[in-house]
Amino acid sequence: LLAKQLVKGSQKLSIYMGEVGPVWSYPDQQLDCVVADPKKGSKMYGLKSYIEYQVTPNTTNRPVNHRYKHFDWLYERLLDKLGSAIPIPSLPDKQVTGRFEEEFIKMRMERLQGWMTRMCRHPVVSSSEVFQLFLTYKDEKDWKTGKRKAEKDETVGVMIFATIEPEAPDLDPIEVEQKCDQFSRFTKAMDDGVKEILTVGQEHWKRCTGPLPKEYQRIGKAFQNLSSVFNSSGYQGEATLTDAMTAAGKTYEEIALMVAEQPRKDLHFLMETNNEYKGLLGCFPDTLAVHKAGIEKVKEGDKLVATSKISPQEKVTMAKRVSTMSYTLQAEMNHFHSNRIYDYNRVMQLYLEEQAKFYETIAEKLRQAHAQFTTM
Amino acid sequence: LLAKQLVKGSQKLSIYMGEVGPVWSYPDQQLDCVVADPKKGSKMYGLKSYIEYQVTPNTTNRPVNHRYKHFDWLYERLLDKLGSAIPIPSLPDKQVTGRFEEEFIKMRMERLQGWMTRMCRHPVVSSSEVFQLFLTYKDEKDWKTGKRKAEKDETVGVMIFATIEPEAPDLDPIEVEQKCDQFSRFTKAMDDGVKEILTVGQEHWKRCTGPLPKEYQRIGKAFQNLSSVFNSSGYQGEATLTDAMTAAGKTYEEIALMVAEQPRKDLHFLMETNNEYKGLLGCFPDTLAVHKAGIEKVKEGDKLVATSKISPQEKVTMAKRVSTMSYTLQAEMNHFHSNRIYDYNRVMQLYLEEQAKFYETIAEKLRQAHAQFTTM
Repeated sequence: LLAKQLVKGSQKLSIYMGEVGPVWSYPDQQLDCVVADPKKGSKMYGLKSYIEYQVTPNTTNRPVNHRYKHFDWLYERLLDKLGSAIPIPSLPDKQVTGRFEEEFIKMRMERLQGWMTRMCRHPVVSSSEVFQLFLTYKDEKDWKTGKRKAEKDETVGVMIFATIEPEAPDLDPIEVEQKCDQFSRFTKAMDDGVKEILTVGQEHWKRCTGPLPKEYQRIGKAFQNLSSVFNSSGYQGEATLTDAMTAAGKTYEEIALMVAEQPRKDLHFLMETNNEYKGLLGCFPDTLAVHKAGIEKVKEGDKLVATSKISPQEKVTMAKRVSTMSYTLQAEMNHFHSNRIYDYNRVMQLYLEEQAKFYETIAEKLRQAHAQFTTM
Repeated sequence: LLAKQLVKGSQKLSIYMGEVGPVWSYPDQQLDCVVADPKKGSKMYGLKSYIEYQVTPNTTNRPVNHRYKHFDWLYERLLDKLGSAIPIPSLPDKQVTGRFEEEFIKMRMERLQGWMTRMCRHPVVSSSEVFQLFLTYKDEKDWKTGKRKAEKDETVGVMIFATIEPEAPDLDPIEVEQKCDQFSRFTKAMDDGVKEILTVGQEHWKRCTGPLPKEYQRIGKAFQNLSSVFNSSGYQGEATLTDAMTAAGKTYEEIALMVAEQPRKDLHFLMETNNEYKGLLGCFPDTLAVHKAGIEKVKEGDKLVATSKISPQEKVTMAKRVSTMSYTLQAEMNHFHSNRIYDYNRVMQLYLEEQAKFYETIAEKLRQAHAQFTTM
């Protein structure tokens, strides 16, 4: 807390008091990017092959190429530089086998997109030099130079706090502590809630892609079998019934396929969002612990001064720095909350919309099958 | 086949050639009855109690009361009197325990209704004296007298064939044999088809009333839990989200209840109809075997005459009688087919209609839940 903090360059991060408390200052135009078009590339005369993704930021609209290991490099840089103040969620898992399978590539791309979107949305991350380099490097040389520079960057770890300038008076430590405790309880409870959704969702996924469609298929087959038995009756004038029964059977086979396909259309996004949040929530306990330790130190301040372990001036500096940490943490908490509200609002809407469409389509198909029977 | 056949009374059953072959002559007005209003009665100063059902035929519109054992008595009489020619389906099972439970009484009533409806639809059964007695007896005395008379009725077993008068020339035994073989194959195949539907339906029923609603309930709970975690965030202005998420969660709990209730509304009737047909189909092998034996005897006719075991006149009588049996069987086959077409058309329509409504209601509920979220 008392280490010398040198700040090179002009990048200052400001926090101001918003309606909900301390908030980051957000840019007017939200940075965004599209991760797309995965292509197989190779190196060393084809001895090594890899997948390269095209990343296009909305600022330049010029695509740059990146491999997974570049994303991983970016993650490490962000963690070093900003990790003490900002929870940087992990990248999607590394994987050794099946790296070139289409399904895997698609899934990884989707998750890299999710991660990039989240990073773009963060005002501190998105405005950082290394992040900008990643998105807008001009050529191979530019990238290499920037990479070296970023790796040599000494403003890492707790140094981040020296670049943050809260535009408000120091915070009341007791109030801050209460807020932190509340947030700590909240993240734990949310972690449980998110895990519950993931567990239930996984089971539901299994049922929807396993036994349930098999059952609808069997119902469909049973109707069709009975229909073909009826067809063999030799009795006249039951073609309308047998045609309708066959159609009904086929409808249930179609429903079986729909049921099995549906989780990819809705449950998938609900699961992905909750998975992302599971990762994000996992970053908070550390951030909160670091902050708590700072607060404790400040509380001990008077005692430390009395026993001449620190000077009164140092106590003031310490309090100032912890206050900055508190501002940062609260800005992060508020950033988290506003994103959470946005994300869950979006994913719940998507889920319910797709679910409603799904049931409407089934109902429609059943109505069509129903219409084939003779009204009596 | 050569037994003396005395026919008392004037009741003659006619068969004529319809478009589909031999058919019974059907009454202009279809007999029907309603089985309703089960009431607990008692006998012997309350020592014995029983359930009495009200049976109201559409001819008199006057209700009569009957206990299960009366239905059973009727069944036995019909079996004795008509069973050689007409498959009389068994009554719903006897049951010893739980006879006075509401669920059981309701189910038995429904099945007695199904049985009575089927009997009413049969022109031979519905016009028989004993069936009419059952539906239209005037008072206790009338019932007792009729009962005794019916029990003494000697026109039972194969005697029924003597009361049948096909209004057409004798049938070609070879053609009849082919038709019977086809029908025999058909009933076996239909029996398999019906059993398949029953098996699949039973499994589907279990899933719909067991694990599936539990899963929807858990999804609903998970949404509500996350919503109440969100509520504890201390962050301002997320009431719209948490209210909407709670509503979504409750919607899934409602869907859980709907899913669990649905089989009673549609699958139930599909199962009952197929159960009835399973019973009905079980009656045919015997009827067909009796008929086949008759045909074989007639085929041996020339040999029997040659070895003087029967006279030529007797051979003619025998052929005539077997021809009547063939007419009867074919009228029954056609009766079965036309009823089957009617019943399956009806039950499939009901099933699909209810299923469509079910999915429409779910979709509607999901749309309502969806509308509670903020559009962004």
